[in-house]
Amino acid sequence: MSNVIEHLNWRYATKSFDATKKLDDDKLHRILEAIRLAPTSSGLQPFEVFVVKNPELRAKIREVAWNQSQVTDASHLLVFAAWDNITPARIDAAFDYTNEVRGFVNEGWEAYRKQLHGIIAARTEQANFDAAARQAYIGLGVALVAAAAEGVDSTPMEGFDPAAVDQILSLKERNLRSVVILPLGYRKQDSDWLVNLKKVRRPRDKFITELA
Amino acid sequence: MSNVIEHLNWRYATKSFDATKKLDDDKLHRILEAIRLAPTSSGLQPFEVFVVKNPELRAKIREVAWNQSQVTDASHLLVFAAWDNITPARIDAAFDYTNEVRGFVNEGWEAYRKQLHGIIAARTEQANFDAAARQAYIGLGVALVAAAAEGVDSTPMEGFDPAAVDQILSLKERNLRSVVILPLGYRKQDSDWLVNLKKVRRPRDKFITELA
Repeated sequence: MSNVIEHLNWRYATKSFDATKKLDDDKLHRILEAIRLAPTSSGLQPFEVFVVKNPELRAKIREVAWNQSQVTDASHLLVFAAWDNITPARIDAAFDYTNEVRGFVNEGWEAYRKQLHGIIAARTEQANFDAAARQAYIGLGVALVAAAAEGVDSTPMEGFDPAAVDQILSLKERNLRSVVILPLGYRKQDSDWLVNLKKVRRPRDKFITELA
Repeated sequence: MSNVIEHLNWRYATKSFDATKKLDDDKLHRILEAIRLAPTSSGLQPFEVFVVKNPELRAKIREVAWNQSQVTDASHLLVFAAWDNITPARIDAAFDYTNEVRGFVNEGWEAYRKQLHGIIAARTEQANFDAAARQAYIGLGVALVAAAAEGVDSTPMEGFDPAAVDQILSLKERNLRSVVILPLGYRKQDSDWLVNLKKVRRPRDKFITELA
């Protein structure tokens, strides 16, 4: 029934992208839609996704990303940017929007809203950002599967200077902080040193413990 | 080509599980295998997954998880536990294992190992844990899609006391810290208040920004 394992085995951290091959809009749309549909804690979706096509911006990002070629050679570059803080206003916007979409106000949901206000107020801004960043990684996990399902290569990358990327994309003004980037495109088989190497994952017995 | 969007639309944060319906081993195995195949930063896989079937452990966890019924009623409970720190020994174990599987030592890979040692030494233990926790969320994102692809319901839950769960599962002794739990099983349609409510996600234009 599931092809998820097949997709995960097909994909790998593409090191060399074919700069001449572009992702078509339908595929890009479906990958982005999968990220948008990813669940997040309390439904807040405390992050945004930037789709960077602009070559000048890509060149600038590459400079602060250890000069890794994927940043400029991939068809598209996704930047996952988490909320720099989880504020009362952001919570209220999410909860109000839920009420609007569902067309009613629910007592339990409103009680939970109050509880959540208390939780975020009791945490530092950094702790709220960390919590938001984790949610962005759910989106990243979903994106990797969605891309592979479309036959699209992707490379999750943390090797960049987040503060510099925030500046390049003016994320601070939007109260966002970049956490991970994901080039999307097509592998250049001939020049990729990793493509033919064996995928390495810890053996099952060192990764999974059953408590029966 | 892709069913990922379909899977994501089918799933929801199941509030009521049917305690009489059990996941078969094949499905469980494929979901766990998908998590194991999820990519992580530098290939470290800095987390482990606990599959809690034991009813007594589940009852204890429920007590420190706001008494949420999913913890005990779901067929299986996954606990994602991140490394409490990224240590030189853990890096070396991962890099050595890669060399063993691939059957050769690569100069670039060894240089990267040294670089990584420097990176983790420069960070606090908490920062290394936070980095590890993010990787666990990639696994979580993959797990959600893999479960839905199997027709299995799942509910990502952060509403529990991590320190208490760590104690119940003796995670500290293994240098792990619980970060998120995921009950797996089958929805009890009749008694689930959320099952028929509309899925709410921020509109595309408030979630995605294209920089052309």
